[in-house]
Amino acid sequence: MIERISTAYYRLPLEPSGDAGHGSLDTEELVTVELAAEGLVGHGYAYTIGRGGRAVRALIDHDLAPLLVGQEAGDVDALWERMWRGLLYVGRGGLAAFAIAALDIALWDLRGLREGKPLVALAGGTARPIPAYGSGVDLPKPLDGLLRQVEGFLARGYPGVKVKIGREDFEEDVERVAAVRRLVGDGIDLMIDANMGWSLGQALERGGRLAEQNPYWLEEPIIPEDVPGHARLARELPMPIAIGESLHSPREFERYIAERALGVLQIDPVTNGGITPTLRVLEMANQASLPTSSHYTDELSAHLLCASTNPIYLEKHAFALDRYLERPQVVTDGKVRPTDDPGTGLRFDREALRPYAAD
Amino acid sequence: MIERISTAYYRLPLEPSGDAGHGSLDTEELVTVELAAEGLVGHGYAYTIGRGGRAVRALIDHDLAPLLVGQEAGDVDALWERMWRGLLYVGRGGLAAFAIAALDIALWDLRGLREGKPLVALAGGTARPIPAYGSGVDLPKPLDGLLRQVEGFLARGYPGVKVKIGREDFEEDVERVAAVRRLVGDGIDLMIDANMGWSLGQALERGGRLAEQNPYWLEEPIIPEDVPGHARLARELPMPIAIGESLHSPREFERYIAERALGVLQIDPVTNGGITPTLRVLEMANQASLPTSSHYTDELSAHLLCASTNPIYLEKHAFALDRYLERPQVVTDGKVRPTDDPGTGLRFDREALRPYAAD
Repeated sequence: MIERISTAYYRLPLEPSGDAGHGSLDTEELVTVELAAEGLVGHGYAYTIGRGGRAVRALIDHDLAPLLVGQEAGDVDALWERMWRGLLYVGRGGLAAFAIAALDIALWDLRGLREGKPLVALAGGTARPIPAYGSGVDLPKPLDGLLRQVEGFLARGYPGVKVKIGREDFEEDVERVAAVRRLVGDGIDLMIDANMGWSLGQALERGGRLAEQNPYWLEEPIIPEDVPGHARLARELPMPIAIGESLHSPREFERYIAERALGVLQIDPVTNGGITPTLRVLEMANQASLPTSSHYTDELSAHLLCASTNPIYLEKHAFALDRYLERPQVVTDGKVRPTDDPGTGLRFDREALRPYAAD
Repeated sequence: MIERISTAYYRLPLEPSGDAGHGSLDTEELVTVELAAEGLVGHGYAYTIGRGGRAVRALIDHDLAPLLVGQEAGDVDALWERMWRGLLYVGRGGLAAFAIAALDIALWDLRGLREGKPLVALAGGTARPIPAYGSGVDLPKPLDGLLRQVEGFLARGYPGVKVKIGREDFEEDVERVAAVRRLVGDGIDLMIDANMGWSLGQALERGGRLAEQNPYWLEEPIIPEDVPGHARLARELPMPIAIGESLHSPREFERYIAERALGVLQIDPVTNGGITPTLRVLEMANQASLPTSSHYTDELSAHLLCASTNPIYLEKHAFALDRYLERPQVVTDGKVRPTDDPGTGLRFDREALRPYAAD
């Protein structure tokens, strides 16, 4: 039986960053959850890129924890449905998905501790190495800073790198992507990410021009509400369209898959509403033979992508939480593996986090 | 310039209520906003049906107020965009829409005070009486209690009444709707509301059977994510399909209108993200010659529906805030009119609210 749920809130400084959709970024918010049941404690978290974290915490403390405390912890699917329905009026996506996710992750961790199995096994996957790519949030960086960041990714052995696009002057995007391609050569995969910054017309034209640099994928060219627009881009542009971090429920993924509006499905168990719905989404991707990747959540995604039949890449994110983890994720030969411990294997280093605790 | 934004939070008791989607309801949450600029104070609010209110307040206090304080108050469209973009990562609907709405409503109120015009005039409408219908949240009520509630609506002179459907045993829905029809006769409009409780197959079959009682509309038969499902219901059922309270942005309404998936468009300036996007939605309804109605927000909707070319009904909601307002909305001959004062005309009676203040 779930006996106690506690949360903590941290404001983690970022080196000045930014992208075409979310503007300038200087703070990452982290809400951690501990969920105690029968002598074990499951750990979960949600993050934001600077706003909404206190609201996520308020949802957990005031609205979701009362729905869980006193319930049996074992049937995670049923508890996820209970949370989803409990927040139906203010939920069905958006911020509610982040709050439900933090608790759902803790419930899966707890289940792993109880069964003595790592998340990858609970998820029905087989632990194996997944290629990782280095991912920058680098739209405001001048070109030389961008190239230095990419050199850092190469030095760490990543077989792929991602850069942001969507600068006010598109010719700068062209120049920057070309410079990165010259730097990395043809043997490295180069992803580009517009963070919803373009109109459909712009995406058609600009995607066509950037295709000259042979990008591995084009991520979030336009707003996620425009599924038919994505379908058209998927048909008319030569590179695959990647999307996922901005979708908050299996229903939203279902529509993208049904309309063949994406070429790479990116999971993020925090923004997608938890591990429970992410596993449903991965099953849908398997059925549709869709390649999968991840967004943020490096540690959890190393487990979850092993439940995919075609996991092409894990994102090693510029905002990764490694410096705040007891055991940072290990990258070997540009690949990561899920942890072997029971549960998610994710434990925060509270000493490292302490300076950033806030109310 | 916006100088100060303050909020308050109340937990208002409801008589035990419920519907097929949201279950049992016993508390309404109210978050009030006061926004001060140049000697004037604009008032706004958001509500929930029991969960998420503290998170709405946290978004306003910590994330949205800092985006507004110091800005010029006059260009409400630009301020709405600033809030929408500021919460893009955790927003694009859901709970963020409620928080943005509370501030947007205060900004429109302030604009009315500055220009000395009531909201209806700012919205481009002409003040006129709008028919109101009595709306119960009565799914758990036994049949005699339901009929007594409907008798109360008739006694107040409403030309229409709404009852909830979606009981576990559908035969009870049939019996209850038939009993209400016998009670009200053929001269009263009878709306029915399933609150997303049915599958598409159920909605097709059950909607067909309930058509025998000649309902004025069928509201929210299935989950709002299923737009093609709504389009099919709109084609195949004889009564109009009504939807709106669960849509959180003009983009979502746009899709419903484009796919002809609704017959009555219901506005709720709180759940729809504020007055700014609601006016865009009403303009879309006008372009599509769609009849309009409202959800909750009785006082604001009396203004906004006057900007519609075909406002068929205002909902007089069982949870209406009248008892907590300085001047409760007046119903005359079953109709309501927008207030004449500058702004929204909505001022909370803080004495009446005081017993329900919470942190």
